[in-house]
Amino acid sequence: MSVHRDLDWRSVSRARRDEYAGTHRPRVVRVGTVEVGGARPVVIAGPCAVESRAQTLEIARACADAGADLLRGGAWKPRTSPYAFQGLGVEGLEILAEARATTGLPIVTEVLDVRMLAVVEQFADVLQIGSRNMQNYPLLTEAGRTRKPVLLKRGMCATLQEWLCAAEYVVRGGNEDVILCERGIRALGNGEYDRNTLDLNVVPAAIERTWLPVIVDPSHGTGVASMVPRAALAAVAYGAHGLLIEVLAEDGKPEDARCDGDQGVRPSTLRKVVEGIPAVLGAVGAESEVRA
Amino acid sequence: MSVHRDLDWRSVSRARRDEYAGTHRPRVVRVGTVEVGGARPVVIAGPCAVESRAQTLEIARACADAGADLLRGGAWKPRTSPYAFQGLGVEGLEILAEARATTGLPIVTEVLDVRMLAVVEQFADVLQIGSRNMQNYPLLTEAGRTRKPVLLKRGMCATLQEWLCAAEYVVRGGNEDVILCERGIRALGNGEYDRNTLDLNVVPAAIERTWLPVIVDPSHGTGVASMVPRAALAAVAYGAHGLLIEVLAEDGKPEDARCDGDQGVRPSTLRKVVEGIPAVLGAVGAESEVRA
Amino acid sequence: MSVHRDLDWRSVSRARRDEYAGTHRPRVVRVGTVEVGGARPVVIAGPCAVESRAQTLEIARACADAGADLLRGGAWKPRTSPYAFQGLGVEGLEILAEARATTGLPIVTEVLDVRMLAVVEQFADVLQIGSRNMQNYPLLTEAGRTRKPVLLKRGMCATLQEWLCAAEYVVRGGNEDVILCERGIRALGNGEYDRNTLDLNVVPAAIERTWLPVIVDPSHGTGVASMVPRAALAAVAYGAHGLLIEVLAEDGKPEDARCDGDQGVRPSTLRKVVEGIPAVLGAVGAESEVRA
Amino acid sequence: MSVHRDLDWRSVSRARRDEYAGTHRPRVVRVGTVEVGGARPVVIAGPCAVESRAQTLEIARACADAGADLLRGGAWKPRTSPYAFQGLGVEGLEILAEARATTGLPIVTEVLDVRMLAVVEQFADVLQIGSRNMQNYPLLTEAGRTRKPVLLKRGMCATLQEWLCAAEYVVRGGNEDVILCERGIRALGNGEYDRNTLDLNVVPAAIERTWLPVIVDPSHGTGVASMVPRAALAAVAYGAHGLLIEVLAEDGKPEDARCDGDQGVRPSTLRKVVEGIPAVLGAVGAESEVRA
Repeated sequence: MSVHRDLDWRSVSRARRDEYAGTHRPRVVRVGTVEVGGARPVVIAGPCAVESRAQTLEIARACADAGADLLRGGAWKPRTSPYAFQGLGVEGLEILAEARATTGLPIVTEVLDVRMLAVVEQFADVLQIGSRNMQNYPLLTEAGRTRKPVLLKRGMCATLQEWLCAAEYVVRGGNEDVILCERGIRALGNGEYDRNTLDLNVVPAAIERTWLPVIVDPSHGTGVASMVPRAALAAVAYGAHGLLIEVLAEDGKPEDARCDGDQGVRPSTLRKVVEGIPAVLGAVGAESEVRA
Repeated sequence: MSVHRDLDWRSVSRARRDEYAGTHRPRVVRVGTVEVGGARPVVIAGPCAVESRAQTLEIARACADAGADLLRGGAWKPRTSPYAFQGLGVEGLEILAEARATTGLPIVTEVLDVRMLAVVEQFADVLQIGSRNMQNYPLLTEAGRTRKPVLLKRGMCATLQEWLCAAEYVVRGGNEDVILCERGIRALGNGEYDRNTLDLNVVPAAIERTWLPVIVDPSHGTGVASMVPRAALAAVAYGAHGLLIEVLAEDGKPEDARCDGDQGVRPSTLRKVVEGIPAVLGAVGAESEVRA
Repeated sequence: MSVHRDLDWRSVSRARRDEYAGTHRPRVVRVGTVEVGGARPVVIAGPCAVESRAQTLEIARACADAGADLLRGGAWKPRTSPYAFQGLGVEGLEILAEARATTGLPIVTEVLDVRMLAVVEQFADVLQIGSRNMQNYPLLTEAGRTRKPVLLKRGMCATLQEWLCAAEYVVRGGNEDVILCERGIRALGNGEYDRNTLDLNVVPAAIERTWLPVIVDPSHGTGVASMVPRAALAAVAYGAHGLLIEVLAEDGKPEDARCDGDQGVRPSTLRKVVEGIPAVLGAVGAESEVRA
Repeated sequence: MSVHRDLDWRSVSRARRDEYAGTHRPRVVRVGTVEVGGARPVVIAGPCAVESRAQTLEIARACADAGADLLRGGAWKPRTSPYAFQGLGVEGLEILAEARATTGLPIVTEVLDVRMLAVVEQFADVLQIGSRNMQNYPLLTEAGRTRKPVLLKRGMCATLQEWLCAAEYVVRGGNEDVILCERGIRALGNGEYDRNTLDLNVVPAAIERTWLPVIVDPSHGTGVASMVPRAALAAVAYGAHGLLIEVLAEDGKPEDARCDGDQGVRPSTLRKVVEGIPAVLGAVGAESEVRA
């Protein structure tokens, strides 16, 4: 029923692109000097939301110090409740630009309104499309017309095929710089011991089917700060090409964060994750060895 | 973890509105002379997509004859695959307007791009917001600024609270004419014997929590035409204030439909559903009797 | 991955049994003078657990008066917590036998330990195998050696194929009197507004694939007493061959029940369900009409 | 609805046992000289099913060579289809005993019928209780009366609380040597790209709530051999106290295996997993560092 095939995501299909067919190699998406899908997993880190200039600059600097490659932060936040903090908007973008100037880290930020795409595009180095918008086809189509890399989060209950079809909406517009991001699916533990179920099996499955790089968001994928470093390194073991991690200020209180405070880790924890990556890569070895 | 309360959907909360608190009465949403939430369940019927003038007019007339109250049809279709039929766009709206003129039935049609809202609003009597857009907050917010009734489908894996929060985005904009529509959730039978799992338990649960009327879409809620009439009458047994049913031409072939042919019923079947409603209403009896 | 076919449930396959192929007719399972799969849906009602002689006899009489066809009650209860009430055991069976003698209603009761099968078989008219034991293959196999009808509940996350395979374990032992019972699956609303998600789509899907009769348990399928009557009549609309309903004493307090008090309905409510069935059957009409 | 608390799994609750409260330390379950919950994660490996003496001895020796600590193999297999290979029974146990004598590895084998417990107990070093029997309370209760360690797999859709309650059934019988084993849950990717969704978030969540050691089965948790080594090392990153891995003969064909051939890895792959564990442990560091 409603089965989709390779033909529905023809542009992003590994099997249909000679350059990638028969390998596990991803496209390298370049963001400034950072290579997503390159020699080592990239680390994207930063606050959930841009809440203020001071908070953002402090966290940005700490993330850079801890070894992050890219800075994330939301200027517009898609919130379940209309009464929750919705983000600072354009002011948030300006703060992110300042953080970039200060740290040298390129910016990943979410666009959730097709009418805001032009302004976000001016500021962002990578356009994030969130889970709730994975099937917002006008937004995907417009993102395909830009020439900015697009970080496409998996929908909360999206199949792999639906996710690849969403990427296809972007790529067939001429923008091949799409980064897939697993961020947890809705399943039975949610609410009991996690916020989402991190579905790491999808990482090698996606890599098998598409040449797009695949990263993992352990912050949403657990919803619990104490699980994040383990989940992050597990994602690396699974072959993820990068991590997206939410960070609090070193001495900030989770309950003071205006968005998702429970899942933010400290910069000192981020640093340990960054430092742990090479050993995990060593353990899983070269593709040829670990793939059975 | 991310628990939402009544306060997050304060405007649509039954308990917070004196007029409805302590009852099971819904708001009556008026569409022309049709009352959604009124004395009897309404029937919204029509093709999945407007495919042509001839197809739409034929089905529209057949739906009117069969006893439908409102006509549905998609001019823009949110399709998983970018290569699937995407709808006729404005031409589709014009065809729907002609079908309305011919049959006298008000039109329900989907808006999926915030930039198209103004034009859809000109033609439609009810604005449908689909499952994939249930958390498209800019679209919800703009729909709240119109004065057209909004039919808000439940997201594929949305909790009741997320659904009520989505309605809140519309209502707090000043538009209280929101109709909730259950259309099946993603669960374990999908792909084996149905397309979605029709979650009828949510109907009385929603009615208990909100004064918005709640209707059911048995077409998407099963994905199987032969199940639709039973599912439709079951929804009435559960207390639904209306039905949204996809209809094929009496002698059309499911495989010829450009969208969701497997779930469309014939006008003759639609008529039997319409005729069966009063008996089911009689069986469930007055609220005071059936509610334990 | 682990796909099962018709061949795996060959004995219960409708297509493979000439007598039933091409029809929607179920086997008629006879329990005394009651016919499950016969001219009209049967109603199985009674307390969740046999808690005492007085409680059981009172409820049994009230169920008989309300129009139930069979009496249910648990002498052994499979409880998530080892510290919850586990049932009265053999004493419970004796009480059920007395209730049968008093009311004339045959008894449906659960067997959950293969070592207890012989004793349960002596007392019971129908052996119930619960959800947690749907894949307890030794128990299924032994039940296939008895000549008592078996009521086989669907597992909490069992696919239709797994359920049919479970029935096959019984039937290939020579016992063709198996009654399938849908009782709700684990899905997203659970804990928010229901206990299980009643999956009515599985009813026509099962009827299409097997000649075994299919009944529905709206008590577990909702977990909420106020939803039970609506769910029960909806199940009839969907074509169920019977209902399994938990009943409290007319003036009993839900919180006094030692098991699942929240989902028990009153005998007066049961009566309204029984009275509502014919009208719903009338509404859905003959098979030939309602099946699209 | 049906909420369980600490009191329902009081014996296995970390908070209620002074010895473990406030730490992340597990009980050390001793199997011969092997310590589950000890200084390093244990590796349990072997064939899905004991199919023949030759197959079992070959794989057992290869697992021992590859560095496994314990040998697994099923003498009775709970199979969805009654027509699938059900295991060699007592003959299988005798073959396992020979494999133990040959390799020195203690044996883990499943018991699925309470009537077979005594005989399995004679042969096995660890009694495995499978997912389908996680709520087979008579079996759990009897396992609590033995003095053999029990490996308790999580049910396919069991909550953490239900799993802990199942362990409680064993422990309150006086047998504290219970090992919890996550083996994947039913969720949305199943059938599309995996067999089960490996839920690694449950590992740290379980460790937080109970003092029982927690291991992971990446074979069932993926159902895809090529994912197993990555999943295994990811489980170590998440803090698992051991791994349960299904192994094929080095030159065996997956399609020749009588059970679950698609998920078995080669001994050479197993060796790489064993060799990769220390580096992953190094990367996640001491508890105090990685826990945020």
